[in-house]
Parts: sequence; structure tokens; C-alpha cells
Amino acid sequence: MRNLKLTLSYEGTDFAGWQRQPDRRTVQSVVESALEPIEGAPVTIIGAGRTDAGVHAAGQVASVSLSTPIPLDELQRALNGTLPPDVRVIAIETAPIGFDARRLARHKTYRYLIWSDATMPPLLRRVAWHVTYRLDLAAMRAASATLVGRRDFVAFRSAGADDGGSVREVLSATWTLPDRAGAFVEDCAAVGDGILLRFEITGTGFLRHMVRAIVGTLVDVGRARLIPEDVARILASQDRSAAGPTAPAHGLTLWRVDYTDSRYSGTEGIIHRFTGFTG
Amino acid sequence: MRNLKLTLSYEGTDFAGWQRQPDRRTVQSVVESALEPIEGAPVTIIGAGRTDAGVHAAGQVASVSLSTPIPLDELQRALNGTLPPDVRVIAIETAPIGFDARRLARHKTYRYLIWSDATMPPLLRRVAWHVTYRLDLAAMRAASATLVGRRDFVAFRSAGADDGGSVREVLSATWTLPDRAGAFVEDCAAVGDGILLRFEITGTGFLRHMVRAIVGTLVDVGRARLIPEDVARILASQDRSAAGPTAPAHGLTLWRVDYTDSRYSGTEGIIHRFTGFTG
Repeated sequence: MRNLKLTLSYEGTDFAGWQRQPDRRTVQSVVESALEPIEGAPVTIIGAGRTDAGVHAAGQVASVSLSTPIPLDELQRALNGTLPPDVRVIAIETAPIGFDARRLARHKTYRYLIWSDATMPPLLRRVAWHVTYRLDLAAMRAASATLVGRRDFVAFRSAGADDGGSVREVLSATWTLPDRAGAFVEDCAAVGDGILLRFEITGTGFLRHMVRAIVGTLVDVGRARLIPEDVARILASQDRSAAGPTAPAHGLTLWRVDYTDSRYSGTEGIIHRFTGFTG
Repeated sequence: MRNLKLTLSYEGTDFAGWQRQPDRRTVQSVVESALEPIEGAPVTIIGAGRTDAGVHAAGQVASVSLSTPIPLDELQRALNGTLPPDVRVIAIETAPIGFDARRLARHKTYRYLIWSDATMPPLLRRVAWHVTYRLDLAAMRAASATLVGRRDFVAFRSAGADDGGSVREVLSATWTLPDRAGAFVEDCAAVGDGILLRFEITGTGFLRHMVRAIVGTLVDVGRARLIPEDVARILASQDRSAAGPTAPAHGLTLWRVDYTDSRYSGTEGIIHRFTGFTG
């Protein structure tokens, strides 16, 4: 058996999320179905992040054990030849014995895109949340800074099971205005006064709907329904109803997953490759 | 009656092109159907460019005469409330009597996106042509320069009727590598060694499939099937079979339409607004 690390990119629009469910089109089941004829037996993959229905991924990571001796580049070609075009295997690497993409993930980074304007450009509609009001970026940045650290994020969790309690560590939470000159946004959507905002958050892990509840709350700050100081108060309240609404799934992308556990990353080279996208 | 100038953005994926056709979903018919209940009578709009099936637009321009006294901002809201999400009215302005979006267009600018890599990122697949070979950008730029000027482009025309012969003036034809730092591409597709190339061409008008035949030919130059000097030879041959293949529709976007005819643009302000997107 070989242990493999797959890096996957997908558009979440037509998927009922990552996790296998009976009679639903999920990323996990589509990838497992593509692996099965190659392996000659049913295959189970473990994803680093169980993305919700509609959430995209640029650098999802999955681990899998296979007994087929097929070379890795051939395996990648075979998979991408079978998979539907809304999911792609971006890279396949050999992983150390015991590599588990979920359990060993050290950091995950998510991005959330918001388009702020009266009109939503059609070419952005599947990947950005359309917000019609002006947002106060300085207030959103001040509020985001109060999220950084090791905290109980239960006020930003939707009902549902999460592994290991509700304390998580957020390493960074930033808002940027992607430069429109030369950007894809300009290719699709340089219309009028619209502004694209990008939120990026890195943490040791995230509770169910946590990033989307954070974005919904930060947008409430941006439109002056809340003040930046309210975010610390909401965290302390441990009350989900104190936070803002859950932002829609289609603005969210699982951007990358980092692994640096030296027991599983034998060399600097592998450690480096485990970090996924470096931009 | 008021003459109006509409600026439209659409994703071409699910449209059989711009032009009204019986029993086909086209941009013209969808917009005309949205206008009809507001006007209380059938409406005909004139588009600056008759984009093909699958071709997108960031700044298509259409002219229309309406007798309804509805204020323009209300008209825009009403249209965008009715239209499907893959087409949006980005702007509506009053136009001088006699304004005809097609006949008076002075320049049109198209953009074409190419993703060069083994793997196509799912989030780019509807807007960029996936090319699996490496492209020689310097050769493509040299070849593009030979297209600039007033020339007979019949060798780059597909069979079909065009207004006014086959001589057109190309004002610029450039290739750029959109900066990936901070770009939407980075949000969706910063994977491995993939490169996004953007072709932009501005001209007084374009023959049927002309931009796509030019892109297909320039890609043949980029992969060394042709040399840059061949493009001048192909132009001179006036033979469509001498040129390269027609690049697929989904990489192409009608980017903007410029109007500067002083008979139809009464003031500097209107002239300015007629130029559409300025980036």
C-alpha cells in the first residue's frame, strides 16, 4: 500500500459539499468513484476540510491508501480524464505512512470574496457574495483583529457536531482589495464603482459555518449595524444569536492546508510541498 | 420616444449568442423580453457586437427607443430584477436622437484568456481556453504586431455574411500576463506552474470569428507550428485554410465599445460616458 496526498480544486456550485452522502453528488464520492476502477476496489479518501454545499476549494488536501502500482503522473492524468470538469486533481505526492490529511492538518486558510455594488457582474456571481451596501473597510479590519488568538468560537458555530470542543486558534484574519489592474476581476467585472473585497483567515481549525458566521458578522460591522468592539463582546457571550448572519456558501473557498508535523514530513522538501500553494 | 444606451454584461455559457433566433435563448431576446412589460409593447434592441454562442461580454452596448417615462435608475433596477443572473444591465444613459449602437460604434475591444498548464482549474473553465502546451510569448507578440493596421482580414473570416467587405483596421493587438499577485486568478487558480495569458485586440470592427481565428493562429505561433512571419503571409494569402484553427468561444469576452462621433455625442461628458469601461 502507498499513502498518497492529493491536492484538489473544485467549484462547489453543483456539489452537496465534500462529504459522502447517500444519493448526493459530493466531491468525496466523485473522487472515490474515479479512483475505484484504477484501484480495482472501493476506495475511501480523507479530506482535510469537510467543505459545505456550494463552498469551493483551490487547495483541498486528501489522503488515500492505494495498492495499485500506477505511476503518480499517470494516476493524475487518469483521474482528470475521468473526473467531471468542476473538480480537478492539481497534484499527487507520496506521503509518509500514517499521513492523515484531516488529523495532521496544522493550519487551514479560507478566502471569502464580496462584491460591493448595486449590480452583480454575471461572471463573478458563483464565487463572490453580492452586497449592495457600502462597507467600511477600516471598521471591518479593526473587528477582524480582535478574532486573532486562541479563543472559544462557539458564538460563531452553527448547530452540528465538531471534533474537539469549540476552542480554536486564529492566526490571521485580513481584508484586502485585490488590485484590479491586471486582475481577472478586471477581465470580468470592472464595472462602474463596484469593489471586490477579499477576506483571508488562517487558523488551526474551524467550527461548522465558523468562517461564514465571522464574515456575516464582519459585514454587519462594515455596514455599521455593529461596531468593531462588538466582536469581542460576541465572542465572550458564547451566544450564536449575538453574532451576525451566516454569509452564503458560494463566496467561500478553502484556499490551502498546511502540514508541518515532522513525524510525517521527513524532509524539508516534503514539508515544503505539504504547504500547498504559496501564491 | 427616448433613445437609450444600455451597457450589458453577460456570461455567454448558456446563451446561443447575442442575436435573436426562433426558439433559442439569446441575450437579445432575454433583454427584449424583460423590456416588453415595462414598455407595454414589443421592443427591439440593437447590439454593438453580435457575439457568438458562448462568448461573454463585460461591456456590450445596445441602443433602444422607449416611450415609457420611467426614470433610468428605476428602469435599470426593474430590468435587473427580471433578468436571469447571467445577464445584467450595468448602466443606462440617455443617448442622442439617432444613436445606433452598432452603426456608430467606432472601436470595439475584445479580450481572450488562455490558461496554459496540464490541468484546468475548475473556477476558470468557463472563461479561459485550456491549452496544455507551453507558449512562446515573444513569438506571439511579434506575430500580433503584424496584424495592426488597415488590412483585408478575409483569411481570418469564417463563412457567413459580414457588413461592408472584409477590410478592417486593427488599432492594437497585445498579449499580457495578468499579475497573479492580488488577482482573482490567484483566488481561484494559483495552481502549480499554470500561466494565464490575456490577448486584447481593438479595432474598427471584426469579421465573423475573426478574433477567434486570430487567437487560434497566434497560439499556433506560440507552439512553433508557425513562425511570426507566417501571419503576414496568411493575411496576404486571403485564404482561410492558411490560418490556424478557430479558438473556442468561451475564452472570448467583448470588453468594451467606444463611440466618439460628435454628431451623436453632444458634450465631452457624453463622449466620455460613451467610451464605457476605462479600467
